[in-house]
Amino acid sequence: MDVPAVPAKVDPDALTAVLDGRWAALRRDVRVRMAAASFRETVGLDVEAHRAQVLDQLRKLATTDLPGLGFDPAYGGGGDVGGSVTSFEMLGFGDLSLMVKAGVQWGLFGGAVQLLGTARHHERYLRRIKDLELLGCFAMTERGHGSDVQHLRTTATYDAATGEFVVHSPDADAAKEYIGNAARDGELAVVFAQLVTGGESRGVHAFLVPIRVGGTTAPGVSIEDCGVKAGLNGVDNGRLRFDHVRVPREALLNRFGDVAPDGTYSSPIESDGRRFFTMLGTLIRGRVSVAGSAGNAAKRALALAVRYGDTRRQFAKPDGEEVAILDYLGHQRKLLPALAASYALHFAQEELVSKLHDIPADAPDEEQRELESRAAGLKAVATWHATSTIQTAREACGGAGYLAENMLPALKADTDVFTTFEGDNTVLLQLVAKGLLTSYKEFFADLSPLATARFVAEQLVDAVLERSVTRKVLERLTESADAEVLFDRDWQLRMFEDREEHVLDGVAQRLRRAGSDPFDAFNSAQDHVLRAGRVHVDHLVLQAFVSALSRCPDADARALLERVCDLYALSTLEADRAWFLEHGRLTAARAKALTAAVNSLCLALRPHARTLVDAFAVPEQFLAAPMLS
Amino acid sequence: MDVPAVPAKVDPDALTAVLDGRWAALRRDVRVRMAAASFRETVGLDVEAHRAQVLDQLRKLATTDLPGLGFDPAYGGGGDVGGSVTSFEMLGFGDLSLMVKAGVQWGLFGGAVQLLGTARHHERYLRRIKDLELLGCFAMTERGHGSDVQHLRTTATYDAATGEFVVHSPDADAAKEYIGNAARDGELAVVFAQLVTGGESRGVHAFLVPIRVGGTTAPGVSIEDCGVKAGLNGVDNGRLRFDHVRVPREALLNRFGDVAPDGTYSSPIESDGRRFFTMLGTLIRGRVSVAGSAGNAAKRALALAVRYGDTRRQFAKPDGEEVAILDYLGHQRKLLPALAASYALHFAQEELVSKLHDIPADAPDEEQRELESRAAGLKAVATWHATSTIQTAREACGGAGYLAENMLPALKADTDVFTTFEGDNTVLLQLVAKGLLTSYKEFFADLSPLATARFVAEQLVDAVLERSVTRKVLERLTESADAEVLFDRDWQLRMFEDREEHVLDGVAQRLRRAGSDPFDAFNSAQDHVLRAGRVHVDHLVLQAFVSALSRCPDADARALLERVCDLYALSTLEADRAWFLEHGRLTAARAKALTAAVNSLCLALRPHARTLVDAFAVPEQFLAAPMLS
Repeated sequence: MDVPAVPAKVDPDALTAVLDGRWAALRRDVRVRMAAASFRETVGLDVEAHRAQVLDQLRKLATTDLPGLGFDPAYGGGGDVGGSVTSFEMLGFGDLSLMVKAGVQWGLFGGAVQLLGTARHHERYLRRIKDLELLGCFAMTERGHGSDVQHLRTTATYDAATGEFVVHSPDADAAKEYIGNAARDGELAVVFAQLVTGGESRGVHAFLVPIRVGGTTAPGVSIEDCGVKAGLNGVDNGRLRFDHVRVPREALLNRFGDVAPDGTYSSPIESDGRRFFTMLGTLIRGRVSVAGSAGNAAKRALALAVRYGDTRRQFAKPDGEEVAILDYLGHQRKLLPALAASYALHFAQEELVSKLHDIPADAPDEEQRELESRAAGLKAVATWHATSTIQTAREACGGAGYLAENMLPALKADTDVFTTFEGDNTVLLQLVAKGLLTSYKEFFADLSPLATARFVAEQLVDAVLERSVTRKVLERLTESADAEVLFDRDWQLRMFEDREEHVLDGVAQRLRRAGSDPFDAFNSAQDHVLRAGRVHVDHLVLQAFVSALSRCPDADARALLERVCDLYALSTLEADRAWFLEHGRLTAARAKALTAAVNSLCLALRPHARTLVDAFAVPEQFLAAPMLS
Repeated sequence: MDVPAVPAKVDPDALTAVLDGRWAALRRDVRVRMAAASFRETVGLDVEAHRAQVLDQLRKLATTDLPGLGFDPAYGGGGDVGGSVTSFEMLGFGDLSLMVKAGVQWGLFGGAVQLLGTARHHERYLRRIKDLELLGCFAMTERGHGSDVQHLRTTATYDAATGEFVVHSPDADAAKEYIGNAARDGELAVVFAQLVTGGESRGVHAFLVPIRVGGTTAPGVSIEDCGVKAGLNGVDNGRLRFDHVRVPREALLNRFGDVAPDGTYSSPIESDGRRFFTMLGTLIRGRVSVAGSAGNAAKRALALAVRYGDTRRQFAKPDGEEVAILDYLGHQRKLLPALAASYALHFAQEELVSKLHDIPADAPDEEQRELESRAAGLKAVATWHATSTIQTAREACGGAGYLAENMLPALKADTDVFTTFEGDNTVLLQLVAKGLLTSYKEFFADLSPLATARFVAEQLVDAVLERSVTRKVLERLTESADAEVLFDRDWQLRMFEDREEHVLDGVAQRLRRAGSDPFDAFNSAQDHVLRAGRVHVDHLVLQAFVSALSRCPDADARALLERVCDLYALSTLEADRAWFLEHGRLTAARAKALTAAVNSLCLALRPHARTLVDAFAVPEQFLAAPMLS
């Protein structure tokens, strides 16, 4: 199949300029800093040496203005939310333990103090947190409750007699689990607990609880080391249990709920549930940073694998010349669609960070929810992408990819938990789908004949539309050759959009049709619910890529990016072509043409593969693998 | 969708009996031995401690009769090839470093001496290898040539003047790479090198070269440690280089090729290529053992994840009861099709081991090639299955799955290279496809008008057949409800068989149609070639499962296995339903029915999930994860 023309040569710097985008200067700055020898690799370090090295690196970071970017300027911060997230992302090129430890200290711990606390907490702590005089933890997850944090079981009971909260873990399942900074370095923890006052539970709130004083575990606290993990062993994760630990009333981070000295509870948000989700909503920066750094880890893996595939030769052609393994279609198929997806996700991430940066503090609820949903969805898709891409990159480097010196093992092991932490991906996709279903909400709440009739009517219209859409697609096929349609950006976008709408409608219908047991109703449609979340994110990602194309001034770079965008769009459609076939959106012939188009794009982009990974501008020391020498 | 009845309760022992099959007594025996404390876990061991522990365990194994099972009874062996492979497989339940180290010592090193050597080597070495008095290496892979071993570049040049071979690595790319037992323990290596005598190269042969003498590196040999790896750190992989190392003429393992004192070369097999592949063919036991132990590692991961999903609860139903995560359809979808595939692959593996055991030494070439192809294909499919299943199991256990104490991290890291070693999976699938294409061979060799005409005629017949097959499938749809067809074993088998035939025909057509450049012709069809290999293996696997069903005397166990077989068949078809839709083998409605059937099977099998993993009878100490307590 003919692919639209690809320029002969493209300057990687022109691509880097588009990729670096709004925070380009900051990205360049972090790259230079990361080239310092102190950000050296971790091969062969044991757990304690690795932890010590990461803490050292953290202290070096603390002397820069990076940690403060996200904090209030009143306390020495930069007030630059987007820059702050971008700087965490950039750490994703290096040792991910450092990224995570920095994220725990400044993003989660510092972020919670800033965003859930009030002036009294800011004045007392923010500067010390920024400067690393005070190391802290973000103690939310419990052994028994991870995804379902609303039901965690640690309690903080107000004792009006002494003006204190009593923080308590009733049993082993209520112990805080996987808490970063807990096993070794943390002194103060933001502890999430059910606030009880006047005998009444007010839902989950955050409390500042000292866990170490002068290096010694605080009384009533017990700390256990989580021990060796699959990766991220430079981060000291631990378990925390509280045995009636008393903290002053002021330890409550009281922006969204407060307790008066006499025990009276007050909050600007009445509903416990809504208050809790508002609190969680303020903490999305961590989720966004995880998505971005997963993306950068995947880029690094691709850069390693593409460079290897470009030089590694195996099997001779009949003329005796040995073939570079990236010249094999099968190898291109492994790496190039993943590379295209890395570009797409990069642009989607940048758009998300921009939105996060620009959203006003008093933005309407709906806008806030949309942002949270986007962060959740992109985190799920970006981290799954990282997991599968790094796995593929490891395999694409064969035995060399298995040696620690070639860096892929640490990338794989470190990022493996990204699909779990900051929200389990499956749960996050469900969240996205639920948000999308709010437009159907009235319908679920109201089983009146009127609502039912309206729904049926809407479905009927949709069914008619579907038939006509199908017919249109089929007509289009006879009108124009596949090559023209497949490379038509509007057609691609329409395919993504139509799928999103149709899947969502299908979910609504299924939930409607289901029996009276609400769990069974949800559960029997769960695969469709997850799919609805997923295809929504895919659509956002393609839109972000398309919008980035228009921001590329260099004509050759743009022409190349157009084809990368094609590869992202078509390989995504190809992977899900069963759905399009099942729903009359693709004919069998066109589905086969999709596969042919992806193959042709792989062949056309292969000469640019090195340029495309070089454009990520991964600091060279993180690509200095012996297999490439 | 209605699923055929599943019994209320099934005895796991009845399932174990079917699974244990022909070598049941041996499997029970190994399970008991592995329960010994000396096979303890590896969490927190550094590389040197881990290596030492594995060597200790190896010495303990050497005192049993297991290592000798595969050797010639004349030298104290058991002459039980199937039992030998099965015992390696069983080690896959425990620390995989031990499995690999045992495989290197007794399977690869000992196997090469036995199968490529002759009486003089057997007498001198076999007993010492078996008893671990002599530790050795299998030095085939080079830095520059891994998959393409026919072109490796180490040379062994015969010097008639002294009656010696001079073994030499001409440059860094010719260094032996990733060699197990090389970095620390090995004394003697089977070195694969191009045999040169009388100025003429005779292709790759194997030579016995001492690499350590009395603990000191032998003169002319240089040994480098491969260092830390992603996993398998209990195995001491190293790099070997030879600088004109002289070994006596008798160091040549001379079963398939010999050099007389005067330098005259002789061989029972004339063609260098055929001789080399015959030599490689004798070494398939290693590949078979890797497939089996990967399968057992995947079973262990599933046992861990299913037990966790059975007890871990998250999110409450409206009635307040928290839901076990394995009750969620999404969670079942992650684990249960993988569990069904584990059953299917187990039976295919057992069939393979039986064939390997039973094949006569003088079996016709064709039968030998079929066995090699089966071993290659099953190794590829089983190890990819292990990689993805263990990844899924890790994610299904959330944060707990990331802690080393819960065993999944080591399973993941250790098995990751299984897709690469003993033959890169992609290369192996190509090998399978090439074997299948031999029936088209005459056609490729012969471009005469006659051959072309015959091919065109055959294709025409096929096209007519395809249309009629399609029509039949469609007719069947109107005749019988989906539920009836989908659960019809014959229909399932026909779908697998038809796909295999059609894909293979398509590959032949593509290769035929392609232009004159043989590399381009192959390369542009590579994705179809790989698919041909894959779907062939899928078909073998389903056939093996079906044949195992008939060996199950317990009616309830059999009824349950029938549904597990359905889940394997239907989830495999579902995963590839795009192909069936594109090729007129499924209508859109039936494709959707497939998905519904897989969902129904997940719900129906969910109550038996624990029974199904218990039936694997993984020794309990390898399931003693704290997350399950």
